Amino acid sequence: MTESTIKVALLGAGTVGSQVAKALTEDSEELSRRIGAVPELIGIAVRSLDAERDYQADPGLYTTDAETLIDGADVVIELTGGMEPARTRILRALEQGKHVVSGNKALLAAHGAELHRAAAENGAQLSYEAAVAGAIPILRPLRDSLAGDRVTRVLGIMNGTTNFMLDAMDSTGAQFDDALTEAQNLGYAEADPTADVDGLDAAAKAAIVASLAFHSEFTIDDVHCQGIRDITADDVAAAAEDGYVIKLLSVCELDGDGVNIRVNPTLIPRSHPLASVRDAYNAVFVESRDAGELMFYGPGAGGAPTASAVLGDFVSLARRSVLGGPGVPDSSYAGLKATSLSNVVSRYTVGLRVRDKLGVLAAIANVFAEHGVSIQTMHQTKHREKEDVEGDHATIRIVTHKTSDESLRSTIDELSSLTTVYDVTSVIQVEG
Amino acid sequence: MTESTIKVALLGAGTVGSQVAKALTEDSEELSRRIGAVPELIGIAVRSLDAERDYQADPGLYTTDAETLIDGADVVIELTGGMEPARTRILRALEQGKHVVSGNKALLAAHGAELHRAAAENGAQLSYEAAVAGAIPILRPLRDSLAGDRVTRVLGIMNGTTNFMLDAMDSTGAQFDDALTEAQNLGYAEADPTADVDGLDAAAKAAIVASLAFHSEFTIDDVHCQGIRDITADDVAAAAEDGYVIKLLSVCELDGDGVNIRVNPTLIPRSHPLASVRDAYNAVFVESRDAGELMFYGPGAGGAPTASAVLGDFVSLARRSVLGGPGVPDSSYAGLKATSLSNVVSRYTVGLRVRDKLGVLAAIANVFAEHGVSIQTMHQTKHREKEDVEGDHATIRIVTHKTSDESLRSTIDELSSLTTVYDVTSVIQVEG
Repeated sequence: MTESTIKVALLGAGTVGSQVAKALTEDSEELSRRIGAVPELIGIAVRSLDAERDYQADPGLYTTDAETLIDGADVVIELTGGMEPARTRILRALEQGKHVVSGNKALLAAHGAELHRAAAENGAQLSYEAAVAGAIPILRPLRDSLAGDRVTRVLGIMNGTTNFMLDAMDSTGAQFDDALTEAQNLGYAEADPTADVDGLDAAAKAAIVASLAFHSEFTIDDVHCQGIRDITADDVAAAAEDGYVIKLLSVCELDGDGVNIRVNPTLIPRSHPLASVRDAYNAVFVESRDAGELMFYGPGAGGAPTASAVLGDFVSLARRSVLGGPGVPDSSYAGLKATSLSNVVSRYTVGLRVRDKLGVLAAIANVFAEHGVSIQTMHQTKHREKEDVEGDHATIRIVTHKTSDESLRSTIDELSSLTTVYDVTSVIQVEG
Repeated sequence: MTESTIKVALLGAGTVGSQVAKALTEDSEELSRRIGAVPELIGIAVRSLDAERDYQADPGLYTTDAETLIDGADVVIELTGGMEPARTRILRALEQGKHVVSGNKALLAAHGAELHRAAAENGAQLSYEAAVAGAIPILRPLRDSLAGDRVTRVLGIMNGTTNFMLDAMDSTGAQFDDALTEAQNLGYAEADPTADVDGLDAAAKAAIVASLAFHSEFTIDDVHCQGIRDITADDVAAAAEDGYVIKLLSVCELDGDGVNIRVNPTLIPRSHPLASVRDAYNAVFVESRDAGELMFYGPGAGGAPTASAVLGDFVSLARRSVLGGPGVPDSSYAGLKATSLSNVVSRYTVGLRVRDKLGVLAAIANVFAEHGVSIQTMHQTKHREKEDVEGDHATIRIVTHKTSDESLRSTIDELSSLTTVYDVTSVIQVEG
């Protein structure tokens, strides 16, 4: 294990910034093992030193002098949002060859090309997975995994607030205004919901995704954008009647020699994978020449998920470039061992073929009880078949509560030994 | 643009190997732009020079001398499968510091740790996205995107053949044997279906996924494996009755101080995202501390999808290491422009509120026809409301065939000008 450190400057201490500060502080040892060097949080740039924070880092770390902080760092994590001073600060870092992780979708949708050029010219890396679809890894797959393929179209549900609203309208018949109020009450929508409802948030993400998917420079101004303000409960109900659901889709698709990028409410068939994306979840559906249809699904927002994306970018670039290594450190450091099935706790369904005789059910239930396996449901079906040499029989299907593999096995062994049990026809785990 | 080349040795010319050879040959220019250097396929190692191939590369490229080929390459792509000679050849390449891309799940599930060590010791990269879930980017997200998070559990449908069979049993009530025959007829299952049906294929993938998700060394011997041979049509029907579907799940989960890795048939509720994975598709569901629940979905096998994963690995490592660059080349080389909406062709639903009068429907249909917009369906609902100052009215909902945004707009403009049309209440795109 090397003793080298990576100096990290954090810009911003909002919801996501606080989570990142917490992880860099409390998970430092784990992160060190993953990177192969110790990440050192050297400071947190904030606008005011006495604001309230979700996570209170060492008070000495807070500073209002972002520039000096940047100049002393190896990696800069920008989580302030907005155009300025974020743009100038990121450029300052890149021009010094420092790597930057950002979650600033508005900035990247407007000035992505300029930031990428500054990074390339100075041999610095710029990552921003958190800017699109929260924790869902979508930018990295587009940039790396599909790097040898040709993307033809991307369809995304990239705004959680509007998806929550449309889902509420679809599942409860709510009117637009009631759905918006509910989203606001639950903290999904801001007091001023314009950025979400009018599609501007989704449009910024579409511009970023289109740039990576089609290796070209697009900004939010290239996106045709229509929000969901005009969607009524009647529209949603009429769509449902025809087997459709209305989603606010971000669409980026090859269009002749160009790319068409748009955000608009769209009817999609209920059988489409995107139709089942509920609540405030996000999903991105990618169509490509060779890989075919891929879908990525997960939480589109929230402090912890977004911080996960930021830290993933940070660890990846720290591994790769700060150390100048080959990119993949020894990944066996955790040294965990495989465990036996005996500790695994699960629900099970058990199928039995038994003699149809008074008291059999009780005898079987007794075996389960003796081995400490609690029964959730028990169904019996009687069969009277003349051809059956064994005479009348019944099939029993039992669903257990959670039990260990070991207890279940011993239960099954004893059941098999009963003369009233002809067969254990199935033993299958139950999830969820 | 640099003039440097990257010499590629391809081992294997089966279904996937042929696709990769084709892409390296025919897409060379595009790949060069993506990498920043020219990939040069210097040879294809095969067992026999006169076998039939899906893609016939330049005959001079084929060789039976894999060792000499490897020694002359910068990057080795291994697509032969099996343990030997694949293992010895990959080690030979890594020990010379050459980067390796492999799709060999059996080898990685048995000797992954040895190969990783050889790579790390020699500063070489080893990538094998194609070994798990075909084209679905799952290994890269686990290794990079979640690098700052803690994975707690992975649930995967990692074998397409068995998913196809279970889906057929669920949707058509087919017996196991019939479902297997159908899978064989469609080319999903081999004549000897053991590896699929007994869960061995899924177990190999589970070992690979668990190793990356939990930063530890696991082999296929660590996986508790139960196939689907005992699953009957009755089991599937009974599960369906209770609102469940049976899937062959690969489960990797934290279990105290260790990791439990198992493959077994499992009942999952129909509302679970994995329940809707149909046919031969694969999906991987990841639960982590911060990112929450993520799902990755796509084709789990097939020549083109698997080749896409191989090429993604190749381009990524070629970018990153062969050139010694910062990892992300200028990604704006394609230079595509954003297009206007006028060319976008889509179906639309149009809602209208009209005067309830004889001939109105015909007049409206006429406007669509005049603008070349073909109507697929037209629904009329009549309303008689005393309070309506405008008198009786009707609502009409029209779904069009595919049409351009421009034609639709001019149609809507003219409809709005009709005195019999009170309102255009909605215009929404329809996908699929």
